Amino acid sequence: MTKETIDRIRKFTDDRDWNQFHTPANLAKSISIEASELLECFQWDETNYDLEHVKEELADVLVYCRNMLDVLGLDEYEIVNAKMKKNEAKYPVEKSKGNSRKYDEL
Amino acid sequence: MTKETIDRIRKFTDDRDWNQFHTPANLAKSISIEASELLECFQWDETNYDLEHVKEELADVLVYCRNMLDVLGLDEYEIVNAKMKKNEAKYPVEKSKGNSRKYDEL
Amino acid sequence: MTKETIDRIRKFTDDRDWNQFHTPANLAKSISIEASELLECFQWDETNYDLEHVKEELADVLVYCRNMLDVLGLDEYEIVNAKMKKNEAKYPVEKSKGNSRKYDEL
Amino acid sequence: MTKETIDRIRKFTDDRDWNQFHTPANLAKSISIEASELLECFQWDETNYDLEHVKEELADVLVYCRNMLDVLGLDEYEIVNAKMKKNEAKYPVEKSKGNSRKYDEL
Repeated sequence: MTKETIDRIRKFTDDRDWNQFHTPANLAKSISIEASELLECFQWDETNYDLEHVKEELADVLVYCRNMLDVLGLDEYEIVNAKMKKNEAKYPVEKSKGNSRKYDEL
Repeated sequence: MTKETIDRIRKFTDDRDWNQFHTPANLAKSISIEASELLECFQWDETNYDLEHVKEELADVLVYCRNMLDVLGLDEYEIVNAKMKKNEAKYPVEKSKGNSRKYDEL
Repeated sequence: MTKETIDRIRKFTDDRDWNQFHTPANLAKSISIEASELLECFQWDETNYDLEHVKEELADVLVYCRNMLDVLGLDEYEIVNAKMKKNEAKYPVEKSKGNSRKYDEL
Repeated sequence: MTKETIDRIRKFTDDRDWNQFHTPANLAKSISIEASELLECFQWDETNYDLEHVKEELADVLVYCRNMLDVLGLDEYEIVNAKMKKNEAKYPVEKSKGNSRKYDEL
């Protein structure tokens, strides 16, 4: 996200005095609720979906993720790269290439 | 996300030949599953949580969101700003300041 | 559920002094978390799933639903029949036969 | 659930010719989606919730669980008791009494 978008999200929350509701637990619930609304776009039919609806629900997930990064003072770059480093070690290319098994079943 | 991180995520998927599994529906399931693992950090206690665990689960959500943006050819900047524009209209400051009611109950 | 199974679930909670954790909100989180673990059985492949795993995760959802009924003093028969009555009205056979559209799109 | 309620749920699905949509994977998604709607009742406030709404969303979860039992030919009594037996072994009373730690952290 650009600095401009991040600021827009922060201002949205600040202007409405909503920081009081943004505990980490409430934001975790919110991310999960929005992720489910995204899933609902594919509930009965996985190939014919409403792209405009998908875009909105995915954006909702991303906005709440940004809120959570803010509340916990986290850096997206840092946590994503730290996790990717772990993933790269957990899923060695030679073992996981072309299969979707979890790391503990490789 | 920086270009570098986005490329790292793409390379991770490409190297493992996992694009075949990354249908929009499977990624929607995956975002929802990871969001639930994030929620699990706050399942019984919302104040004492394991921050390292939270960081990893939030990163997982963000990585799958990035996969979904890629698969659908979406621009994060665009979809988030389009949604924020809608949110700003749906939640006028004067009506929603300090309360957490949904827009249809304002 | 039989009275015997319901009693077994209650005794399990009582013996461990876990009623203190079983707030309605915590149980809602728990149902959602277990539902996601059930979904994980179908994350990448919807036809080849581990039935034993599915049975366990579905049972977990049902157990937490039972806990929630207990905590709120609800009767399963009553709430399910009340909801079915609503569903029958919301989805008239002639309009919804053979299609999976939501009631507001019928 | 009583035989009468189970039959009512089956008839509802049959009358609408919806068995075609009720694959195990679609039902897993549906249980997860409804569980999230239940969670939404507690999104920002865990103590002041709309009980009528909670009842409806919990009923929705239970109905989809019943659909899944049906589709997979499972017996609720059997799978719940098998899981309770496992839970009782995984969470010995003396180790888990009064604390909410997961079995692998006991």
